[in-house]
Amino acid sequence: MILYLNGNFIPESEAAISVYDRGFLYGDGLFETVRIVAGRPYKLIEHLQRLQSAAAALDLQFSGADSMPSVVDRLLQFNNTRDSLLRITLTRGPGKRGYSPKNAGPPTILVALHPLPENHDILQQWHLILSTHKAADPFGAFKTCSKLLLVLARAQADRAGADDALLLHLDGTLAETTTSNIFWICDGALCTPPLTPSILPGVTRQTVINLARDMNIPVAERTATPADLFGAEAVLLTQTTFGIIEAVTLDQRPVRCSPQTNALHRAYMATLPR
Amino acid sequence: MILYLNGNFIPESEAAISVYDRGFLYGDGLFETVRIVAGRPYKLIEHLQRLQSAAAALDLQFSGADSMPSVVDRLLQFNNTRDSLLRITLTRGPGKRGYSPKNAGPPTILVALHPLPENHDILQQWHLILSTHKAADPFGAFKTCSKLLLVLARAQADRAGADDALLLHLDGTLAETTTSNIFWICDGALCTPPLTPSILPGVTRQTVINLARDMNIPVAERTATPADLFGAEAVLLTQTTFGIIEAVTLDQRPVRCSPQTNALHRAYMATLPR
Repeated sequence: MILYLNGNFIPESEAAISVYDRGFLYGDGLFETVRIVAGRPYKLIEHLQRLQSAAAALDLQFSGADSMPSVVDRLLQFNNTRDSLLRITLTRGPGKRGYSPKNAGPPTILVALHPLPENHDILQQWHLILSTHKAADPFGAFKTCSKLLLVLARAQADRAGADDALLLHLDGTLAETTTSNIFWICDGALCTPPLTPSILPGVTRQTVINLARDMNIPVAERTATPADLFGAEAVLLTQTTFGIIEAVTLDQRPVRCSPQTNALHRAYMATLPR
Repeated sequence: MILYLNGNFIPESEAAISVYDRGFLYGDGLFETVRIVAGRPYKLIEHLQRLQSAAAALDLQFSGADSMPSVVDRLLQFNNTRDSLLRITLTRGPGKRGYSPKNAGPPTILVALHPLPENHDILQQWHLILSTHKAADPFGAFKTCSKLLLVLARAQADRAGADDALLLHLDGTLAETTTSNIFWICDGALCTPPLTPSILPGVTRQTVINLARDMNIPVAERTATPADLFGAEAVLLTQTTFGIIEAVTLDQRPVRCSPQTNALHRAYMATLPR
């Protein structure tokens, strides 16, 4: 496996991060995960735009944005990969001890490929739990490297034998799962919580909203609670890896399934390059 | 400089972290900062106890706790250090992509020395700003590696030319600064906010509370707002590096100073080994 690290393409075995990297010390960084389909990155520009706007919000230098598509192309050639996941990590780089980001850098840029789960083209059926942790991250709208909250929520799902954990906002309304935005179908409309500073504005979330509109399915942003999921015709998750996922239980209690989920999944899969 | 990394004492130039370390990828780790005074770690046991209880809360393996005092001793000998700051970093170690901590590890343990600021024995006078970021970290009671919130609050202080930033809880009451617990003197009593899940239970906070009681100064935990600081006889910060710090302004508006702060600082300095 060849990685891209700070301007160089190097073997995985030679790649290493400084013990003073602020990503390691303070979670002072950002990342993006991009699906590689048929040897091409899917929605790379959208992911890079989100990374760039997050970097600007965090005052994190990201000078390499323009060259990133060609870096990704070369990395895919080096590794001769058809289907995988690409993670771009951008941190503030090495710095002095202490929270102040003053004089840190240059930024660390790491681009690495990771295996795509098997059956990634088949509609997954996931069991969810409700996390006891709240979606309280004030920077949850960014894919930061300070994601211990999501690690601990996901660990709760692992312990329960579930696939993912659903987090609520502090006011008890639906936020997101650790990996996905959440949707549900109600009165024939595709509903999803409005974006807040604690929700990731998912690239796939937007793709699915556009897709539904193209299919003449009404789309609505609605503040809701877990009770609304049990009353819904279907519950869906959207994310980079699987695109659309069907939720089948929440805390071991079934939620309904609809053929509309399969139709949306088919339509989403048809947008992927071949 | 010699560091301790995963069982080995190695030169700084040879030390490196895996690109798959979960501390780097997700902020999935913890740290402690310990002051080295006259060649000895100060309150090491208290810091290790906090690290151990945080590791247990995060389900993070920390098997090396018992050997840590001797690791620190040897590290100090290797580097022949009299006064410095020691940072212990413990992460979940390398893992697969994704938030799930399943099968990650072994944990990464890094112990490194950092310079102590000059004039560390003199009572510092700090200018504070009120951060626009709230103390919303649900794991703020732990020194985690997911501290982007404090990085961004501290960057606000940097931009304002201030020394540190004060964060309020979501309900507008005083929480802590990015580096310190906050105290104020009111009607002769030393007051500090009660601990919450968003406040670090500082080792120095507890030392100063004990010290004040020994000096027959009443100590009270009180929920308060920034307005209470302007009405106070003095405002103090407590932290590992400087012990006790005197706050002199908040958002460029002076707060009062009291000889009691100097008395407490002298008493604290007298507890340090020589």
